[in-house]
Amino acid sequence: ACSMALQATADPLPSWNDTHAKTAIVEYVASVTDPTSEQFVPVAARIAVFDNDGTLWSEQPVYFQLTYALDTLKEKAKKDPSLINSPALKAAAAGDLKTLMAGGMSGLQEVINASHSDMSVMAFQQSVKQWLATARHPKTNMRYDAMIYQPMLELLSYLRDNSFTTYIVSGGGQQFIRAFSEKAYGIPPQQVIGTALHAQYELIDGKPQITKKPDVSFLDDGPGKPVGIATVIGKKPIFVGGNSDGDFEMLEWGSSNELPSFGLIVHHTDAKREFAYDRDSHIGKLDKGLKQASSRGWLVVDMKEDWAKVYPKTP
Amino acid sequence: ACSMALQATADPLPSWNDTHAKTAIVEYVASVTDPTSEQFVPVAARIAVFDNDGTLWSEQPVYFQLTYALDTLKEKAKKDPSLINSPALKAAAAGDLKTLMAGGMSGLQEVINASHSDMSVMAFQQSVKQWLATARHPKTNMRYDAMIYQPMLELLSYLRDNSFTTYIVSGGGQQFIRAFSEKAYGIPPQQVIGTALHAQYELIDGKPQITKKPDVSFLDDGPGKPVGIATVIGKKPIFVGGNSDGDFEMLEWGSSNELPSFGLIVHHTDAKREFAYDRDSHIGKLDKGLKQASSRGWLVVDMKEDWAKVYPKTP
Ligand SMILES: [Ca+2]
Ligand SMILES: [Ca+2]
Repeated sequence: ACSMALQATADPLPSWNDTHAKTAIVEYVASVTDPTSEQFVPVAARIAVFDNDGTLWSEQPVYFQLTYALDTLKEKAKKDPSLINSPALKAAAAGDLKTLMAGGMSGLQEVINASHSDMSVMAFQQSVKQWLATARHPKTNMRYDAMIYQPMLELLSYLRDNSFTTYIVSGGGQQFIRAFSEKAYGIPPQQVIGTALHAQYELIDGKPQITKKPDVSFLDDGPGKPVGIATVIGKKPIFVGGNSDGDFEMLEWGSSNELPSFGLIVHHTDAKREFAYDRDSHIGKLDKGLKQASSRGWLVVDMKEDWAKVYPKTP
Repeated sequence: ACSMALQATADPLPSWNDTHAKTAIVEYVASVTDPTSEQFVPVAARIAVFDNDGTLWSEQPVYFQLTYALDTLKEKAKKDPSLINSPALKAAAAGDLKTLMAGGMSGLQEVINASHSDMSVMAFQQSVKQWLATARHPKTNMRYDAMIYQPMLELLSYLRDNSFTTYIVSGGGQQFIRAFSEKAYGIPPQQVIGTALHAQYELIDGKPQITKKPDVSFLDDGPGKPVGIATVIGKKPIFVGGNSDGDFEMLEWGSSNELPSFGLIVHHTDAKREFAYDRDSHIGKLDKGLKQASSRGWLVVDMKEDWAKVYPKTP
């Protein structure tokens, strides 16, 4: 009873400044969880979905998963140089992102195939965990999984404390995110939806395993996000958080809920503590969402103004 | 406290006879939920997966979803005869299953496309619910969703009461099963994995919807079942229930769990109360599973011997 009382009075979002953003979130959650309110939403319908890159953790200067792919490719090439058998892979192994990106999606797909496929899901996640333990971000020198947003961790907990189920719905790799999502965000594997490569059930020396195969079987980005939600969850979310135009359809999908819904866009405005980018960014481009947020009733979170803290371990 | 005490002493499986099957299930559940046992399994790993057709409800004389497809096709053809534009669809609309089946998968796919696609998921599920409300089974004259197995309902509840999360992993259509799974089995949409058609996010008159498109995007059968589990749940189950060789890989996958696991096969042995079939059946063929159950340690449930009752509303 004592801890219940504490929970009810303590500030659930201590790393959020006392600005409109925090008020809007708290008022929304209070109204949908109040059984006497017309806005009340039953627990089974309290589905909250969040993008990952740029919404729950940083994504600059390049998606962290791409850094993992390049690091892994370099390691593999050391042991077997014959792997580097195309211009795209050569550029990737040399860290020449400009040439790699100029090759478009097909070059990127080659890198993903070479670094992410033809291994078991378990071996892949082990490799991601090892990488996270040793790799450091070029700007902050922090572990990549330490570059998660403290205010968003608090928001996730706050929603769960109010009987929301919190999902990740990411354009990033589903099995990649699962390697750290439970520890980093408290989000278990079954609540992670993401882009997936083909997978195959195989017996290796009589032991069954799921093997990741080349090529994307499901692209969880843009209009793919509502499709992923409909496929895996089968319910329309009432709370949607994103940061780029790749989340536009997911935000729109949530807003079409007959129940009271909430849309949230993390706007990267803090060059000092994190990064500042939106319309012209090659990663996490936010243009349409920024233009339409107001007319659609979505909250734009200004990182610089609304967040008292960015990462858990920085002031 | 009173209800807890009741729960602990009341028979959790009253529709199971006092045979080996019931004892084996109860002993397994008791051991994995006993914190002092070496067999103890933490709550987060208590994942139970069940096939649907022939495991949770009947499947003879043909899969109920096929009956839905044929009934729907006939209704649609009444309004628009031009829909029936191929030999397979002609056979289907005439109820000529023999000719339809002789055409193999491609004919069946035509029927599925014509009856299941080019509509919103919501409209589709509404159609399934309407069909369930009016259609009757040719042998029992019961509603199709009344032909669910009372002993399996008790098993699902028993597992959930012991903090298992219960999933359906079916070769049948995911959105088809979701139309009734919560009401029939207490299994919510996010715990239903099944075969899926392509889906697309669309704006219709400015309103977003998920539209079912032709052709299968994921076949959740045989080796597809462990793949579906790995994709959606991301954890290996400890309890697997099935009834046919389409569940073999899922059973094998569960048995490869390092944690204590349980495999269960429903064997249709009761021609009087339900149906009797296995090795030679065109539906729910069970041959490999029956041969290997003993060596693999899977429990074969003999419906006639082990079940005191079949359907909830029959003696
Ligand atoms: Ca993003
Ligand atoms: Ca079956």
